[in-house]
Amino acid sequence: MAIILFSDFGAHDLYVGQVHVVLDRYAPGVRVIDLLHDAPSLNVRASAHLLAALVRQVPRGHVFMAVVDPGVGTERKAAVMRADGRTFVGPDNGLLSVVAARSTTRQYWQIVSHPPDISASFHGRDLFAPMAAAVVTDDFPNERVKAVPDLAVTLPGDDLAEIIYIDHYGNAMTGLRGSALPADATIGAGASKVAHARVFDEVPAGTAFWYVNSIGLVEIAANRANAAALLALAIGDAVQCVARTQS
Amino acid sequence: MAIILFSDFGAHDLYVGQVHVVLDRYAPGVRVIDLLHDAPSLNVRASAHLLAALVRQVPRGHVFMAVVDPGVGTERKAAVMRADGRTFVGPDNGLLSVVAARSTTRQYWQIVSHPPDISASFHGRDLFAPMAAAVVTDDFPNERVKAVPDLAVTLPGDDLAEIIYIDHYGNAMTGLRGSALPADATIGAGASKVAHARVFDEVPAGTAFWYVNSIGLVEIAANRANAAALLALAIGDAVQCVARTQS
Amino acid sequence: MAIILFSDFGAHDLYVGQVHVVLDRYAPGVRVIDLLHDAPSLNVRASAHLLAALVRQVPRGHVFMAVVDPGVGTERKAAVMRADGRTFVGPDNGLLSVVAARSTTRQYWQIVSHPPDISASFHGRDLFAPMAAAVVTDDFPNERVKAVPDLAVTLPGDDLAEIIYIDHYGNAMTGLRGSALPADATIGAGASKVAHARVFDEVPAGTAFWYVNSIGLVEIAANRANAAALLALAIGDAVQCVARTQS
Repeated sequence: MAIILFSDFGAHDLYVGQVHVVLDRYAPGVRVIDLLHDAPSLNVRASAHLLAALVRQVPRGHVFMAVVDPGVGTERKAAVMRADGRTFVGPDNGLLSVVAARSTTRQYWQIVSHPPDISASFHGRDLFAPMAAAVVTDDFPNERVKAVPDLAVTLPGDDLAEIIYIDHYGNAMTGLRGSALPADATIGAGASKVAHARVFDEVPAGTAFWYVNSIGLVEIAANRANAAALLALAIGDAVQCVARTQS
Repeated sequence: MAIILFSDFGAHDLYVGQVHVVLDRYAPGVRVIDLLHDAPSLNVRASAHLLAALVRQVPRGHVFMAVVDPGVGTERKAAVMRADGRTFVGPDNGLLSVVAARSTTRQYWQIVSHPPDISASFHGRDLFAPMAAAVVTDDFPNERVKAVPDLAVTLPGDDLAEIIYIDHYGNAMTGLRGSALPADATIGAGASKVAHARVFDEVPAGTAFWYVNSIGLVEIAANRANAAALLALAIGDAVQCVARTQS
Repeated sequence: MAIILFSDFGAHDLYVGQVHVVLDRYAPGVRVIDLLHDAPSLNVRASAHLLAALVRQVPRGHVFMAVVDPGVGTERKAAVMRADGRTFVGPDNGLLSVVAARSTTRQYWQIVSHPPDISASFHGRDLFAPMAAAVVTDDFPNERVKAVPDLAVTLPGDDLAEIIYIDHYGNAMTGLRGSALPADATIGAGASKVAHARVFDEVPAGTAFWYVNSIGLVEIAANRANAAALLALAIGDAVQCVARTQS
């Protein structure tokens, strides 16, 4: 069993290392995997959809610490969730709710006891990492949580017709799952329309297309080019299924 | 006992991985934690203050390899330091000296024997990583070091009234510890003045404020906005306590 | 024995973590080292030369997963190679061929059986990571490979007189090995000429020079300045040995 980290802490920044120090302290010897630390910054909705897609690539049994937390230090609740054999620890601000909506089995707890020396701004280190360590070391449920019937904040689990992530190649992932679109659909994104291709080399270099990417999402890409720059796409931009190419 | 890495090697660059290869060779099975690899580039003073703040977040017993080393390949000395139960390996250029100044117990060694095939430009890999591995595997002190009464280069251990780090959210950390300022102080940074808030959501979105951050430093931030961009702040900019808000 | 990762997946992006999840699944307990994930993006030739230089810094016995793969999803072959005591898994698109050309002993296999649920765009996760895990756990050769006499795609193993990598300090590495140039050579890069220095502090601050870097390559750098910005250098730019300073 490993601890899988998903956050917007920034892979190159000084936050992730501090989380690793805490996990090493409370869960020594446990493997920690940095799944993503550049989730859409402070963007809970896009991050929730990205997390839901990524989770499907991780075997059951692991413990996720998922933190995108613009409301840290306020009254937002903190949650532990078990869904389809995986456990999640994170803020109860909607981030875990898309995973929840798409899962068959779910159990929820609210974290009710905070460490005495907790900081106001870094609950990833001070609250969620110790709790993830507790889960992975089987000290869970414990006196720091209480069972609750649902998350306090939930987002719809439906597909999200927006750009939710742009990778360093410039590929723009949407919150649409591949199953939502027929292969002959044309997608509108920004001022452009893009047709489907199966792989990058099916279109000429510099041409944009859409395909179902390796985490099951509809992605707008370009062969040997930066699609997001080419089409001026940004996280949050709406996408539409504008036409069936041939019908 | 883990090896904790702090450097300006760049988290995404080709240097950190080479350090890990060496540590795996000389300290196999030991956990290595990347605390920060984007310390202020070639900026020893800012990095020294940042290191001193971060160190307090790491339990005693661990071994730090700390390298920000613009003078690599010159006559600068190389040091091992024990301070308050932690061991540090790095260049003797001031980087370790703020930690030293703020510690109660201190011991120093100079590294006097260099590996025969050492490169001129990457002592992190060739000198400091093997020494950190020696410390963590208890092959220390060894014939490669000699005890010395102090570091060769020391910086003042006082608070530093400058921006020392800007994180990827745009939060600008100063070298002032939170204990240095009363909560009703107003801080001048660049052409702006900012008042205190306890957490981000206490001020309107887009408003800058200062608070004591999760590593105990005075930090200039903005609610759901990039403070450094908003106020045009850069590492090295002076900050001042300009007024008490109400007195 | 560790698994060493070299790719253009982007250290901060969502791909590397997924590879770690697969390696944890198929090679649990094995150390995985991220050597470099920001190899020149989609640039097989520059990456092949950079890989060949880095490999020399890694002890024999380890398993490399090396993936820079613009043709993923096309008919390009997939390879396993043993060269001078190290094993490599990656696309057969030239990436491994510079290592091969500079090695004394070589053995090659083609990966002939693909997992049934393989994605079209992420063979790093779906094809190469499971194969690297097989190698490291001694399940190799197996029924998924067949021995072949050579790689399908080979690049020349000679030095490459181009910029192949620019690090975050702005140092520009060439594909020329240090042994190729006498120390009194002057190098032309872009519109500029740079002379040799042994270490950064041998030249005035802001001055560009060349030296043999810590991985054995001719590198154009500048003392306390960004050489690539100073000389407007980019990956792919040609470099020339224009003169001997004194002869």
